[in-house]
Amino acid sequence: MSQLRFNELRGEEVVYAVDRQERTFLPARDHCPLCPTLPGGPTTEIPLPAFEIVVFDNRFPAFEAPAGAAEVVVYTDQHDASFAALGSQRARDLMSVWLHRYRELSRRDDVEYVYIFENRGVEVGVTLHHPHGQIYGYPFLPPVAKLELAADARLGGCAPCAGIERELADGERVLIDDGQVLAYVPFAARWPYEVHVALRAHRASLLDCRPEELGSLGDALQRVVRGYDALFARPFPYVMAVHQAPTTEAQPPGAGHLHIEFYPPLRTADKLKFLAGSEQGAGTFISDVLPEEAAAGLREGLARAA
Amino acid sequence: MSQLRFNELRGEEVVYAVDRQERTFLPARDHCPLCPTLPGGPTTEIPLPAFEIVVFDNRFPAFEAPAGAAEVVVYTDQHDASFAALGSQRARDLMSVWLHRYRELSRRDDVEYVYIFENRGVEVGVTLHHPHGQIYGYPFLPPVAKLELAADARLGGCAPCAGIERELADGERVLIDDGQVLAYVPFAARWPYEVHVALRAHRASLLDCRPEELGSLGDALQRVVRGYDALFARPFPYVMAVHQAPTTEAQPPGAGHLHIEFYPPLRTADKLKFLAGSEQGAGTFISDVLPEEAAAGLREGLARAA
Repeated sequence: MSQLRFNELRGEEVVYAVDRQERTFLPARDHCPLCPTLPGGPTTEIPLPAFEIVVFDNRFPAFEAPAGAAEVVVYTDQHDASFAALGSQRARDLMSVWLHRYRELSRRDDVEYVYIFENRGVEVGVTLHHPHGQIYGYPFLPPVAKLELAADARLGGCAPCAGIERELADGERVLIDDGQVLAYVPFAARWPYEVHVALRAHRASLLDCRPEELGSLGDALQRVVRGYDALFARPFPYVMAVHQAPTTEAQPPGAGHLHIEFYPPLRTADKLKFLAGSEQGAGTFISDVLPEEAAAGLREGLARAA
Repeated sequence: MSQLRFNELRGEEVVYAVDRQERTFLPARDHCPLCPTLPGGPTTEIPLPAFEIVVFDNRFPAFEAPAGAAEVVVYTDQHDASFAALGSQRARDLMSVWLHRYRELSRRDDVEYVYIFENRGVEVGVTLHHPHGQIYGYPFLPPVAKLELAADARLGGCAPCAGIERELADGERVLIDDGQVLAYVPFAARWPYEVHVALRAHRASLLDCRPEELGSLGDALQRVVRGYDALFARPFPYVMAVHQAPTTEAQPPGAGHLHIEFYPPLRTADKLKFLAGSEQGAGTFISDVLPEEAAAGLREGLARAA
């Protein structure tokens, strides 16, 4: 169903998933396909009257076996919840679900990169408001994964480890440091309120984490999103992107360093940061907000949300 | 005023232009800073009662000498005009202005890449509706320029020339071919209605074009935008990006091939293509529209606009 084409000028694959044009688009609340199926109500994607976390194949997939995977991860059966509003245990359980899916998909020969992400808010194109994330199993190594491996090669070591050392040394962009997990606005953030959350110890993927590290990660991710929501006293739109080791055999052992990147499109409470001429045509981000100022604002947001 | 920081994970420069946060944002029509200064009216950026094309330094620059340049190119003194609505001679004059600015900026030691572009429509973040474009003189080689040079190296020749040959051979994505200039939806378009307009002969930059080629280019660009506007019978938002040879000494002679890329954010008449999880976090575009279908629709639009 979907088709891959190599874009020569950009040196990257483009995916055509033409059946998605008709996908469910902001349905009425009582027709949410991610809600539980209640007696007498419409049959949803989830034939259960109640659930905690559910994973299933996307009905409008960008990728399908045997050429990749596209899954939906529903965080809760509560339509009006959000990732930040989940109980702490549920967020920790979600980390286990992520780990489980990463392990399963990494074993497939047709999956070279497992990418877990969440789009939140109509500002980033969300078509279903029920709290959920997605997982893509790319049948190729996507550009950002290649850039991260290239950064390791350029630095002669783990680039995220070097970034974490710098953030700890500078200190002024750090938001959370519980000894296991660090959250910070990176030194050269591309988005005004970009935040990275990383394991302090080198962990190539979720598979390498100790259970307490996974718990700490779930906690930190929730704290970041609560801080976002507090920053402008409104639900904060974002893309949450889980970066970890590629799942091809061809990568050097230990390549990749589990970290989560948040890309929020807001530059003020009511103005969006658009990707326009410079970002799209030249590939260079131009930001109105210094990372240190963003970090100061977000630390206040985190304090208010605590 | 602006600051550059190297983003290690992405391998690219990020620009912080913090004074731009307060830049003029969708002013009332009678306070347009790009309109002429009329007797008794407010003084605008342009102290003239009438003009054809005006270029001046951006008051809210991303780059400033001696570390790059940021200029504004106003196409007309008619506030409600558009690039497509300019007279044919004005569009051709604009090509001469582009050439002139490319030549001037290319002589500066602090400019490594001259990038001419237009953002059109609130959907791509336009803050002033008066018809205008911009020119950035990057003090570094931006990522997309590097990718195009890498494509040349990978193919062992000019990548845009190879692309043009393929489009001519396939034929089904070609929109305009007047013998000198070719317009087409590229084989691996990233945006649903992406269009490239290129000189058929190898021309590294505007400086290498014959006068009749520049005229043909202006005509083709206007035809493309008129076709866009006809496609969904509405003003079509886009980023128009002029790609040409870098202006550093370090590039191989002949590197670069003048072409203009249009990135429109619409995927239907009223739905936007968002850059979300896959595009932002993995770098992979997922499109709902096959390039051949987009080309068929756009050919109809061009015919209606003719």
